[in-house]
Amino acid sequence: MLGKYPVFPPTDQEFEDQPRLGKYDVIVIGGGGGGYHGAFELSKGGLKVLMVDDKGNLGGNCLYEGCIPSKSVYMTIYLMEKIRGILNSVGNKDINAVRVLWENAIDHKDHVQYIRYLQHIREIKEHENVDFVKGIAEVIDANRVRVKAIDGSWTKDVEARQLLIATGSIPIKIPVPGADLTIGSQELFGYKTNYRKIPSDVLIIGGGYIGVEVASVLGSMGIKATIVEMLPRILAGWDNEIVSRIEEKLRSKGVEIFTNSKVVGIKKESGQKIVEFERPDGSKGYVTGSEVIMAVGRKPYVEGLDRLGIVEKGRVEVESSMRTKAPNIYAAGDVLGKYMLYHSAVKESVVAAWNILHGKPIYEINFNSIPMTIFTEPEAAMVGLNEETAKARGINYVTVSYPLEDDAYAQIMGVREGWVKLIIERESQRIIGGVIYGEAASLLINEIALAIAVNARVKDIALLAHQHPTIFESIDRAAIRFAL
Amino acid sequence: MLGKYPVFPPTDQEFEDQPRLGKYDVIVIGGGGGGYHGAFELSKGGLKVLMVDDKGNLGGNCLYEGCIPSKSVYMTIYLMEKIRGILNSVGNKDINAVRVLWENAIDHKDHVQYIRYLQHIREIKEHENVDFVKGIAEVIDANRVRVKAIDGSWTKDVEARQLLIATGSIPIKIPVPGADLTIGSQELFGYKTNYRKIPSDVLIIGGGYIGVEVASVLGSMGIKATIVEMLPRILAGWDNEIVSRIEEKLRSKGVEIFTNSKVVGIKKESGQKIVEFERPDGSKGYVTGSEVIMAVGRKPYVEGLDRLGIVEKGRVEVESSMRTKAPNIYAAGDVLGKYMLYHSAVKESVVAAWNILHGKPIYEINFNSIPMTIFTEPEAAMVGLNEETAKARGINYVTVSYPLEDDAYAQIMGVREGWVKLIIERESQRIIGGVIYGEAASLLINEIALAIAVNARVKDIALLAHQHPTIFESIDRAAIRFAL
Amino acid sequence: MLGKYPVFPPTDQEFEDQPRLGKYDVIVIGGGGGGYHGAFELSKGGLKVLMVDDKGNLGGNCLYEGCIPSKSVYMTIYLMEKIRGILNSVGNKDINAVRVLWENAIDHKDHVQYIRYLQHIREIKEHENVDFVKGIAEVIDANRVRVKAIDGSWTKDVEARQLLIATGSIPIKIPVPGADLTIGSQELFGYKTNYRKIPSDVLIIGGGYIGVEVASVLGSMGIKATIVEMLPRILAGWDNEIVSRIEEKLRSKGVEIFTNSKVVGIKKESGQKIVEFERPDGSKGYVTGSEVIMAVGRKPYVEGLDRLGIVEKGRVEVESSMRTKAPNIYAAGDVLGKYMLYHSAVKESVVAAWNILHGKPIYEINFNSIPMTIFTEPEAAMVGLNEETAKARGINYVTVSYPLEDDAYAQIMGVREGWVKLIIERESQRIIGGVIYGEAASLLINEIALAIAVNARVKDIALLAHQHPTIFESIDRAAIRFAL
Amino acid sequence: MLGKYPVFPPTDQEFEDQPRLGKYDVIVIGGGGGGYHGAFELSKGGLKVLMVDDKGNLGGNCLYEGCIPSKSVYMTIYLMEKIRGILNSVGNKDINAVRVLWENAIDHKDHVQYIRYLQHIREIKEHENVDFVKGIAEVIDANRVRVKAIDGSWTKDVEARQLLIATGSIPIKIPVPGADLTIGSQELFGYKTNYRKIPSDVLIIGGGYIGVEVASVLGSMGIKATIVEMLPRILAGWDNEIVSRIEEKLRSKGVEIFTNSKVVGIKKESGQKIVEFERPDGSKGYVTGSEVIMAVGRKPYVEGLDRLGIVEKGRVEVESSMRTKAPNIYAAGDVLGKYMLYHSAVKESVVAAWNILHGKPIYEINFNSIPMTIFTEPEAAMVGLNEETAKARGINYVTVSYPLEDDAYAQIMGVREGWVKLIIERESQRIIGGVIYGEAASLLINEIALAIAVNARVKDIALLAHQHPTIFESIDRAAIRFAL
Repeated sequence: MLGKYPVFPPTDQEFEDQPRLGKYDVIVIGGGGGGYHGAFELSKGGLKVLMVDDKGNLGGNCLYEGCIPSKSVYMTIYLMEKIRGILNSVGNKDINAVRVLWENAIDHKDHVQYIRYLQHIREIKEHENVDFVKGIAEVIDANRVRVKAIDGSWTKDVEARQLLIATGSIPIKIPVPGADLTIGSQELFGYKTNYRKIPSDVLIIGGGYIGVEVASVLGSMGIKATIVEMLPRILAGWDNEIVSRIEEKLRSKGVEIFTNSKVVGIKKESGQKIVEFERPDGSKGYVTGSEVIMAVGRKPYVEGLDRLGIVEKGRVEVESSMRTKAPNIYAAGDVLGKYMLYHSAVKESVVAAWNILHGKPIYEINFNSIPMTIFTEPEAAMVGLNEETAKARGINYVTVSYPLEDDAYAQIMGVREGWVKLIIERESQRIIGGVIYGEAASLLINEIALAIAVNARVKDIALLAHQHPTIFESIDRAAIRFAL
Repeated sequence: MLGKYPVFPPTDQEFEDQPRLGKYDVIVIGGGGGGYHGAFELSKGGLKVLMVDDKGNLGGNCLYEGCIPSKSVYMTIYLMEKIRGILNSVGNKDINAVRVLWENAIDHKDHVQYIRYLQHIREIKEHENVDFVKGIAEVIDANRVRVKAIDGSWTKDVEARQLLIATGSIPIKIPVPGADLTIGSQELFGYKTNYRKIPSDVLIIGGGYIGVEVASVLGSMGIKATIVEMLPRILAGWDNEIVSRIEEKLRSKGVEIFTNSKVVGIKKESGQKIVEFERPDGSKGYVTGSEVIMAVGRKPYVEGLDRLGIVEKGRVEVESSMRTKAPNIYAAGDVLGKYMLYHSAVKESVVAAWNILHGKPIYEINFNSIPMTIFTEPEAAMVGLNEETAKARGINYVTVSYPLEDDAYAQIMGVREGWVKLIIERESQRIIGGVIYGEAASLLINEIALAIAVNARVKDIALLAHQHPTIFESIDRAAIRFAL
Repeated sequence: MLGKYPVFPPTDQEFEDQPRLGKYDVIVIGGGGGGYHGAFELSKGGLKVLMVDDKGNLGGNCLYEGCIPSKSVYMTIYLMEKIRGILNSVGNKDINAVRVLWENAIDHKDHVQYIRYLQHIREIKEHENVDFVKGIAEVIDANRVRVKAIDGSWTKDVEARQLLIATGSIPIKIPVPGADLTIGSQELFGYKTNYRKIPSDVLIIGGGYIGVEVASVLGSMGIKATIVEMLPRILAGWDNEIVSRIEEKLRSKGVEIFTNSKVVGIKKESGQKIVEFERPDGSKGYVTGSEVIMAVGRKPYVEGLDRLGIVEKGRVEVESSMRTKAPNIYAAGDVLGKYMLYHSAVKESVVAAWNILHGKPIYEINFNSIPMTIFTEPEAAMVGLNEETAKARGINYVTVSYPLEDDAYAQIMGVREGWVKLIIERESQRIIGGVIYGEAASLLINEIALAIAVNARVKDIALLAHQHPTIFESIDRAAIRFAL
Repeated sequence: MLGKYPVFPPTDQEFEDQPRLGKYDVIVIGGGGGGYHGAFELSKGGLKVLMVDDKGNLGGNCLYEGCIPSKSVYMTIYLMEKIRGILNSVGNKDINAVRVLWENAIDHKDHVQYIRYLQHIREIKEHENVDFVKGIAEVIDANRVRVKAIDGSWTKDVEARQLLIATGSIPIKIPVPGADLTIGSQELFGYKTNYRKIPSDVLIIGGGYIGVEVASVLGSMGIKATIVEMLPRILAGWDNEIVSRIEEKLRSKGVEIFTNSKVVGIKKESGQKIVEFERPDGSKGYVTGSEVIMAVGRKPYVEGLDRLGIVEKGRVEVESSMRTKAPNIYAAGDVLGKYMLYHSAVKESVVAAWNILHGKPIYEINFNSIPMTIFTEPEAAMVGLNEETAKARGINYVTVSYPLEDDAYAQIMGVREGWVKLIIERESQRIIGGVIYGEAASLLINEIALAIAVNARVKDIALLAHQHPTIFESIDRAAIRFAL
């Protein structure tokens, strides 16, 4: 499955085209966030590392078709929307002059991907203990890996004392008739994709954060989008209040949402595509559009790993030190089926590498401080515990929040929706969670993540002079309400 | 001096027009950031508070003519510049269609000020122990204040157990011939200012952060700006590397900078204004433009406070608890002549209030964690110690930095200049300072401020999974280099 | 009940013998740890305070008949035991020369109490805003208190804005025939007690920490002690392993323990006292001795407080800010029926006082960091969560421990029993609990309490160079095992 | 020099008597605190380690003749003194019955050393990757070490990727005539020493902490001790107030102190020994006693290390990561000539090992949190900065202290001298130092060390409920005075 890319990222001819040695200290399988960050740390620690990736460059799906290109598109379009909002609020009639086309955003995305791939080539060279090879890695046993050329032209077996598995994930396609009529993230955001225009009506299967983000940006472009979601609500696992607000916002942009709607088939009729779905009561429904996007999520890519005895329920099982059941095999990133976020993969990879260097697991990931964001406009973000999870754990907590409506920066940017909410453990007065809906949520959430990671207390935040006028002031304004 | 405003902010008719009582627990003089935040905390603690401000609304100079309106103007214009940059990089020829006029930005600014003044009226009402009066407050002694109407129509003497002095600051005008030909922040950014257009060539006296910000935004509008600075360099006190980069950037926008140039006079000739200056070698120079902006800074407003014995060298002297030499008088904000930043004033005010409530000073401000920003494009920000100050204190430190050129978010936003730099104390591995130049510096600096405030260590930051792709990742990328 | 003391502690004649004023800011009822520490803080904050106590001095039961005198006795005897142990281990036959009699220990105890009472008189005078009165305080309503002379010679009603209730606790006497034949802490340890000798065989009703401490010290004196406990095990609520070790140790000293034995009566026959008890199967048992000590615990003293609506289930109910349901009434100490420990009462009192000063509750007690000790030889101590409570809360934890057998200080002191155990939350690597059995446990536990209070991580402890050779090294030796 | 021991500690015959392999990952030279703790960590991390020590057991000088045996003697004698104090205060005339002889204390010391040596044999076996050899290690170059039998019967050259140098220190003997008439720590406290009695009058050359500790314990035994110190004061580097108190206490025990007295010769006349010294004014003095103890300190043992280029000014120079100038050589312990304390050596050794494992230096020692103690009665201890050093660094600090006279535990133990003093950085409110004189100072100092290590603030300590009645309460009592 890996190794099928319509367009390969730029690769430097100077890299070895096969593993240079027969034996390494560590073999890293996969060059995404879960792979290369650890590989670089291992190299800095003096270990000889072989890293294998089938795209022949770094960044994994995130850079090829995921977060980087999608956000390049979204942010371009939302910048336009933001400036239109300001002009509109002061009565400027000419706001449509401020215009960005989907094609402009796609061009921008390709450009960002390109410079990033070049940067990765430079970075590999900067880490001299890393041999990087474009190829397919097949695990033979806990100490041996077979590396093959993409085109099958060569095969080489390599040994290592330790393995770092970072094979990532692949998109899920639900097995219904007509599933091959749909497109996915590779078509939408893949490097040098051929899909450079977007039709005026789009159907989206899946109301998770990917589907919602796509619907949101299409709505901002004036394109009709329709979400079909199997569960009773979109954005499962997110704070109820946030989900309600996002639904409302999507509807205000003309997005239609069908929940409790299980897709059972897709067909094409007279140039239109039709998605057929079934409701819990057995009744059927149909929606029609020019294009259908399959956005039902991703699953860990564990092919060939089961022989190591480290796969459980379709994912590689690890301790919080990233060590698998096999003491010389570590794993990181999407293949763990845990957070499936690039930034989580990066730190998992570093922790795995540091533990490999140390000879025993002494570092652990604090999963309570990993932020998550939905890149709609405005954004939603959360970190740590939310009210539901705090309640479930029997924690004695309080929440405080501040409406962005009252925040100077939000007023200046003309985006006053939303709020910052902190979840605080009563006795210790520690910040244990944060939930944000609004402008720059993806940025704000980082400070709360740090607060959680270092066990900061609410007074530390309440008395912190945040730069004025920035939206970060809303964090201290929320915190000072704790004492009310 | 206070009490002279061309246009008064909206004031609610329901407020008392004189002090309701003859005796309060605390009288707060000034309704800016140094005043009202403390007043609200005192009210929450159950004390009876009289707050007096000559504008008859809250927010002080910051809201009337300072940070809020100026950033409203800058951010509008910089949004335009950012979107143009992205379009330009992908070869879109039509970037001038994305257009914001100075007038649009001024309209937006007035709108922001207006909604903020309304919000403040609501907030005063929410704090029922605060009596708010539009008027002029004259201190009689450590327990008595004379409050007078702006128009002289009434006078009332009031007593209090404690005072919180927050009289703020006033702009400095250098005493040279023709000084009255210049305009200042009130004309540029004052509420409902009459100066709603900007001429095509502007002279700026003063190369501090205010002068530089104005020059930068004018440059982005295609307006010719010229800075005349007395010192050998603009932006005294800022990191050398940052100053060099900002100079370079200003020049690339057509800004001319004359340093070592002491202004000795201003005159008007045939519709043009001429600024005459003197160099250290005694030679003279002249620059000509349509308008002259005086931006040489502000000074604490201490009129009438000397009789309390709390003024020293033109400013109110306080301990880090905000208590003055007089045990029942606290002070906060610009009148301290310390940071002269709104967000610093806010926390000083809260600390003063909490100490008044507690009956003795137990809270102190940690001045090491107050961030400062120059709102150019891109921005520059710093917090805590920089290399010069760390060196001067004999601290054994190291620095690590990350170039924004390599940051995904900076690439996505098309603004790749700059870097994040952390200053770390070796033995304790604590973050003791941060210096940032680049996109979103004003936002990034807040996380570093928190790190300093809670004595976070470099590994806390290095292992923190910052949201991807946001520019906050550059903070952990810098931190992880500590271990190189 | 309060107000009945065989011997009154020294009281200074200079104190007012009635409340001086009719109205105070705060009335503090009770001069024990829950009362006077808060009173002193309120005084420092400038509030006028009336404190009333029926003994006419500070320290409550803790000083009159509780922790201070009992530990004065125990420590004297255990010092003797320790030096005998060292001499014995090197073959010195003369160890009985090192001798302390019960009478010596009682004399020492009286001396300690006496100097401490004198100290308290000095401390009251040092806090000038406190009026201290020997008397009985009866609450009239939330703002009024009636203060009466012990001998009924005067009565005065006093008002206050706020109350701090610290009425403490009283010993429980189980209501069985012959209960008045028993003695309790007042006879054993009361100030200037008449019981200055101890018979050679003693029965103890109750196997809680007080009963166990008394049995242990009697055992060390060569006195035959017998514990009769109703529950299946002594020391309910304590770590199982610790309970087993203490039982074993008690038995090695000749202490007999009857569990599952509910006392139903006490009688006196031919100079001997007989305790009759019933087993769960209905069978009966008897034990005989010269003296019977009733040590079944204490209960909050809430007489007269129910009219304030703040009493629930026999104790005053408070939030973690120490505020009761009545917004102007705070409470602290044993009357809360929570920890019933002097050091807990002290901090509860301070938190209450600080919140009263602040006008609203902003401080809270972190109950996770309050240590508890059983003063046997060796001691047992715990703080935070133990394994049972961590498990019950669903926390993902690990424990590490170090045997004192291997600790240099324990070897030097000749007391090598026991261990230090740390409970660590996996993901955050925070110390969340500590359990210690062994030499100096009561001292060691304080460092772990601090570690919990400041959210220290296991590596902070593991890398801390504890003074050598002190038993505190065993804390870092345990911590470093986390990484095994 | 190393390798000369009158009595060798027990060694297990099962250890290899030569290095088993020709090549190791790491060779650790020295089995003291700076050596074996690191060796064990390296073993846990999976590296093959050779550790060489000339005594053939662990613990270095600390166990053979230093802290462990000396404190075994002191603590035995001070226990006696403490119990006598309590008995005396209550008028018990029989206090001399409580008696410990020097011989008893020496027997106890031997016993402690013996069980500790057995423990170390067990510990070596528990770390299977460590080969331990009794022998002398000579460094050939940065990767090669020659190991020789003590008796010269074999020699073997061994290679390693990394070295950990922990050769320790040796006593300084001042080069004056008659120096060989003196005895030192080996005679006093060496394992199975022949000096098992002590004469009734002793001369001590050197008023550093070792000389002072010996004088103090002799004083407690009723033996006449005389200190001759070259400098103007004893205990150079210690807090002035502490030095004054210790001097006073020593004098009260009959210790005579000559300062400004440089020893120029020692001679023996008619069974007595005479120490001759010179004063700064050139005049001479003499003191006479039965025995002379040389206690002028220790110096790093660097013989043979200079060829590695890592020795500077007589000691091995390292970064705070414990890495020397040679990138594959780390060093720890007394050979650094830094703290020369066992507990410092232990953590230096661990940090060195962790950095070796990590492949690059990422851990550093925080030298601000290493406590130091003088084991007199009562003890003196300090950690972090004291007032002099804080002043010298230009830190804005305050101090708070609490007299042990008022502490319940000190009263109970009958030792009320002294105080706890905290040094606090004003703005950050962090604890930056602690100085303690009094009962259990060596224990108390550990909590303050932790407070410093984790950057705890004074309020964290002030609100911590320390176990009552323990002397640790005096720490929070001091801290709460910060807010006065």
